[in-house]
Order: sequence, then C-alpha cells, then structure tokens
Amino acid sequence: MKNNVIVGQSGGPTAVINCSLAGVFSTAVANPKMGKVLGMRNGVQGLLERRVIDMGEHLRRDIDVEVLKRTPSSFLGSCRYKLPNPEQNEDVFAKLFGILDELDVGYFFYIGGNDSMDTIMKLCAYGEKIGSNIRFIGVPKTIDNDLAVTDSSPGFGSAAKYVATTTKELILDAQVYNNGAVTIVEAMGRNTGWLAAAASLAKGTDSPGPDLIFLPEIAFNMDDFLDKVSVLAQSHSPTIVVSEGIKLADGRYISELGRDNVTSDAFGHIQLTGTAAYLAAQVRSKLGAKTRAIEFSIMQRCAAHIQSASDAAGAFAVGSHAVRAAADGETNRVIIINRLNSTPYAFETCAMEIVKMANIEKTVPLDWITSTKDYVTGDYIDYAKPLIQGEVAPFYVDGTPRHIRTAK
Amino acid sequence: MKNNVIVGQSGGPTAVINCSLAGVFSTAVANPKMGKVLGMRNGVQGLLERRVIDMGEHLRRDIDVEVLKRTPSSFLGSCRYKLPNPEQNEDVFAKLFGILDELDVGYFFYIGGNDSMDTIMKLCAYGEKIGSNIRFIGVPKTIDNDLAVTDSSPGFGSAAKYVATTTKELILDAQVYNNGAVTIVEAMGRNTGWLAAAASLAKGTDSPGPDLIFLPEIAFNMDDFLDKVSVLAQSHSPTIVVSEGIKLADGRYISELGRDNVTSDAFGHIQLTGTAAYLAAQVRSKLGAKTRAIEFSIMQRCAAHIQSASDAAGAFAVGSHAVRAAADGETNRVIIINRLNSTPYAFETCAMEIVKMANIEKTVPLDWITSTKDYVTGDYIDYAKPLIQGEVAPFYVDGTPRHIRTAK
Repeated sequence: MKNNVIVGQSGGPTAVINCSLAGVFSTAVANPKMGKVLGMRNGVQGLLERRVIDMGEHLRRDIDVEVLKRTPSSFLGSCRYKLPNPEQNEDVFAKLFGILDELDVGYFFYIGGNDSMDTIMKLCAYGEKIGSNIRFIGVPKTIDNDLAVTDSSPGFGSAAKYVATTTKELILDAQVYNNGAVTIVEAMGRNTGWLAAAASLAKGTDSPGPDLIFLPEIAFNMDDFLDKVSVLAQSHSPTIVVSEGIKLADGRYISELGRDNVTSDAFGHIQLTGTAAYLAAQVRSKLGAKTRAIEFSIMQRCAAHIQSASDAAGAFAVGSHAVRAAADGETNRVIIINRLNSTPYAFETCAMEIVKMANIEKTVPLDWITSTKDYVTGDYIDYAKPLIQGEVAPFYVDGTPRHIRTAK
Repeated sequence: MKNNVIVGQSGGPTAVINCSLAGVFSTAVANPKMGKVLGMRNGVQGLLERRVIDMGEHLRRDIDVEVLKRTPSSFLGSCRYKLPNPEQNEDVFAKLFGILDELDVGYFFYIGGNDSMDTIMKLCAYGEKIGSNIRFIGVPKTIDNDLAVTDSSPGFGSAAKYVATTTKELILDAQVYNNGAVTIVEAMGRNTGWLAAAASLAKGTDSPGPDLIFLPEIAFNMDDFLDKVSVLAQSHSPTIVVSEGIKLADGRYISELGRDNVTSDAFGHIQLTGTAAYLAAQVRSKLGAKTRAIEFSIMQRCAAHIQSASDAAGAFAVGSHAVRAAADGETNRVIIINRLNSTPYAFETCAMEIVKMANIEKTVPLDWITSTKDYVTGDYIDYAKPLIQGEVAPFYVDGTPRHIRTAK
C-alpha cells in the first residue's frame, strides 16, 4: 500500500500556519504506518509541476521543528490556484493523481482556508470516482476567522494578539500630545470584522481601548462617523479601528472611494488607496483635525514573535489530528476546534465533514455589535479573549528571532 | 536649599523613553539630598501651565517602576514647544523660573532630542543670568539615532530591533507566492538613515535580509532604483527598505512628489510619509510588477513589547546618571553613552557639555554605505548589532502587555 504523506499550504500565511505543518510532520513521522513526509512547494500548483521536497531533510532534529513552529509565512510557499470542476477539466486531476501515484502518496493534507477545503472536496470526489485509496484531510487556517463550524480558525488568535497589543501601544502613543489628533487604524478583514474587533481586547484597567471600531458586517455611515469623531476629538486624541472591508450602504467599499481619487489625480493622492487613509483624509478636510492613518498591513499575519500560545497549540493540534484521522481511515474531512471552556481556555479537535466548511463564510454575529454600530459587545470579548492567551518565547539569536529558511 | 526634582519628556516617544524616566525617578528617590520627584505634563509647555504631578503618587511600589519601564509612549506626555531666545522674550523664562521657584525645584531633567537640548541650554543661560541655583541636565532619546557625541541615542536600539525583526518576518512572507512581487518598506528617518539601515540586521544564516536599502544620506536616483528592482523581480520577490526622508539630487523629498500639501510642525519639520507608497506606484506603473508598500509608522517607536535589553539598559542608565551628575553639582550637561566594547556589548555613561549635542545632527558615515549606494557595509552592522541584543520580557496580563496609564 502507498504510505507516503504529502502536505501543502495554500492561501495567505498566518503567524502559526507552520505550527500546523509541524503538527502534521511530527505526528506522521511518529506513525509507523506512514512513510516519508513530502511537502509540495506552492501548494497544488507546485505539485502539478512536481516541485516536492522531503520534509525530513529539512527537519532533522527536534529543535528544527520548534524553530519551524516559530517561523512566520508558509514554509512550503503558497498558491492561490483554484482547481477546476472535475467535470469541466479531468486532465488536471488525472495529472495530479498520476504524480501522487508516482510519489507513493497514501495521505494528503492541505492547510488552508475556504478555497483549500474546496480543493480537498474536489480531489476526494475525483479520487472516489477512480477508486483511489488516498485519504484527503483539510487543516484550517486563516487570520480572518471566517471559517464555519470550527470555534476559531487557527491563525486568528495570533493576529488578534498582534492587533490588541499594537492597538494598546498606539493608543498610548496617540495621547502624548494634547492636540485632539485622530488616529485611524486599519486591520485586515474583507467581509468579516473578527480581526478589527480584536482591538477591543486592548481595553482593560491600564488602557481605555480604542474609541470606535467599525466592522464590515454593518453598513458604514460617513456622516455618523464624522459626527462621532468630531465629538471625541474635543476631549482627547481618539483612536479608531476599522476593517479594510467596511462599505457604504450602497455596497461601495470605503477603499474604493480612495482609489477613485487616485485615478482622477495620479500624483496627488497616492496614500488614499487604503480605508484608513481615506477616512483620515475625510477627517482632515471635513473636521480640520490632525490625523494619522496606520495600516497593520502584512505585520498582522506575520508577527510570529508575538504568537498566541493558545492559537499555536490549536494550530499544531489540528495538524496532528489530521494525521491521526487519516491513519484511522478517514477522508474528505476537515479538523475543527471545539471549545470546551473559556476561562481557563480548553479545546478539543474533531474531524468534520468538509462540506460543512468549504465555501461558507462566518461573519461576526450582529448581536455582538453594539446598537450604536461602533463597537463590539461583551459577548465578542468573552469569545475572543481566550484565543490571545499565553505567549510562545521566540528563539532569539543575535537580537532577532531565529527562523527556518523557506524550502527551495 | 530648594531640593525638589522635576522631570519632563519632549519630542517623539521611543519604546524606552520611560526607562529613562524610571532611571531619573529611582535614582532621585534614593538620594537623601533630593525631595519630591515632580513630573511636568507635556514638557515645558505643561510646566508653563503649572500642570505638574507628584511621580511618587503614581509609582508607589517597585513593580510600578518595572511596569513603567515596559510602557511605550511618554508617561508624562510630550510637547513640541520651542522656547524663544531669552533676548527676544524674557517673559516666558521669568514665568518658568517663577513656577520652578514655587515648586521648590533644585534639579531639572529633560528627556528629549536635539530640540530638548536646546531648551536645556536656554534655561541654563537664563538661570545663570538671574543667579539661579537650579541644575539642568539633558537626557538624550530618539529613535533616529542622530544625536552627536553619544555612541547611540537611547530609543534607537529598540526601534532597530523592531525594524530588523519585522523586516525579517516580512521578507519570509513576501516569498510565499512565486510571483516577483516587490515589497517596499518605509522606516522613519527624516535626514538620517540609521533606522532604515537597521533592516540589514535581518540578514543572517536564516534570512537573506532585504535586497536594497536606501538612505537619505545619498541622493536617490529613480532610474537606477527602477533598473535594480526590475532585475531583482526577475528572480524572486524582492524586499526594499527606504528611509521616509530619501530625496532626489535636486533636494525634493520622494514623499513630496506624491502630495499636494506639505505640512510642517512647530520646528519647521516637514511631515514625511508616503515614500514607500509613491515608489510602489512607480514600480507598478513603470515595471508592471505587483507591489506592496508597508509603513512601519508609529509601531517602530512604540513597540515596547520588543524592547532591546541593551537599549533599555542604556536608557535607564542615562536617566540615572543625570540625577547623580546634578547631585554632584553639574549643570548644563547631557548624559551620553560611551561604548567600551562591542562583543559583548559594554558601555559607560558620561556627563558632557550640552553645547556639543544641541542642534547638531549625526548622519550615517558615507563610508558605511556601499559604493552601489543601496546598502550598508559591515561597519554599520558591527556598530548597530550590539544595540539590538537582549530581550526584556513584557509583563503579559490577560494576553496583552501590562502598561502604566499615562498620568492625567
């Protein structure tokens, strides 16, 4: 029987996506039924080009696995390749299964978001059709936290810890001058506000937290926003957090409004490509206030030096469970996180039919957003706070955290 | 004799400016010759409005001082107020000395950059003229590292550690897709490239480091830049780091090219941002490459969760030495850092005539920049690496670092 293992990573990286990879690797090498652990470079796209590495050659010692867990980005590289429907284009599937056959692969793991679960389902469907014995298991990840069924998406907790910590630091910095300046901070989240809402976790006995938080789940009202900012700026220097994906009631993204300006004035408004930058420009021109626009940009997904320990544990656990599930004969499954307790945080992992997750987007419940539409309620805080608990000590060497180099 | 102590913070915050404040406080309260330690809110501007706090009421327990050391931003608030020349306006000085007299102040400490040293000199000159016994000592800080005489400026090491660590994380993230995308990262540094150059510290056995680094010390050539980026993007996804203050040979800032309105602050400093965004737009339009522009923005000066231990120690030491120097009768001095050894890093602090630092700007030596004008040499690395060594464990409570709230 074919018993090699292959694993890939897809979509945007997270600060703990390599913890899931470490979970797959460590559990597979410990399983006597399993052979080599292969890694596909740049997901199924690389697999189609036979770009495959032997993970064991990169992870020779146990400390290598620990360094991998602390390394941001996707060790194997990533892709945004979407498999066609098997009915439309069988060739791609025939080629992929041919390569897997050559590589003696019996177990296939894919670490990714919604699209990756779709990939797993299609591979399963084709595999079943041709009578393949390969087991396919999905391992979830995304900083957006928009995956269905699972209590949280591995990757979210660390991004949330970065957002909470950095917002807390920025709020203090914003207060140094007594000048009513308005700080507008932009977090990722195209259609869901899970991550921007994590700024609320900055609030505590030592921080007032951000003044306002705007999520894409609720239509954004520019007049209401300017009114509120105007009042706040009279008493202090407010900090406002927005999701990149907030939009007006007519469906236009705020960030689109800024892009319109750029195309109409190529040199004049370079900075107005972002949501925060556009809002800051509005506050400046309409209210005459000093502003600064800050984007958490790529840092919120790659700041592995500030991983959440509970998130890192979850990410490792779903990778590890995926291997155990496949060894037990399961296929067409995704491993999810099931919360057992919030304080202290405790979770278990479960194998779930993948169709329940693929292509579904989980948004922030509307009753977790305040009636004023500019903050989240205690329900959100109770949900999210456990996910940022605990720290993973980076391995500092010569002043910076040690990483494992991306596989070539 | 008047024996109260007063301390203020001025200019932009750093991640360790409160370590210097802790150094002043701890050393002053331990000195039996000294009375209360007062803090001026928002620097001399707040002092003129009699906004003064008793530091001892905020720092009752020794752990409060440790939390203060780990708190970003300026605990006392800041100002950009520039004292007039005593010959032009004696009233302000008369008022200030009147307030200091009321407060029984015998020792005056000001934590800041070039402009703050200018403030100290003016106060000293006026004090001498009226026969005041108050001792004035400057405590240096700036993430820009542009202060003369001192081996490094407290605050620089922690900002450099942030830049090196984050650049290292971003480089890994940039490599996930195999698509020749160009990442352009912007660090602070108006006229000096010390901080942008710290991105070179990302380079090591586990990271290629950034591909190019451009500093304001050398005129920026757009054609040369585009040529180099074009070549790099053919083989991989390059990461390029620039100082916000890079300019063309004709003296125009790159950031100015993308703006209609250039605003300046009270000192006549132009507010510079948007350099990376402008260059990314050029790369996109001229080379057709995918790009992303990232600004380290305020995070590079407020990320106290990633303080450099050697920087934090230096910041505390200059604050502490300032108090000892004043107690010994010195005045019109600034405390500097004198490097004794690089590997392992060792330093001493010295009291120096303040005129040697005030209003002087130290730039990166031209022979520390490569002949290709797009990187720094080993001399820079040998200089800067000791300054990012060591970590200060944040006090995490409930998932985020604990801070002390800014004084009201």
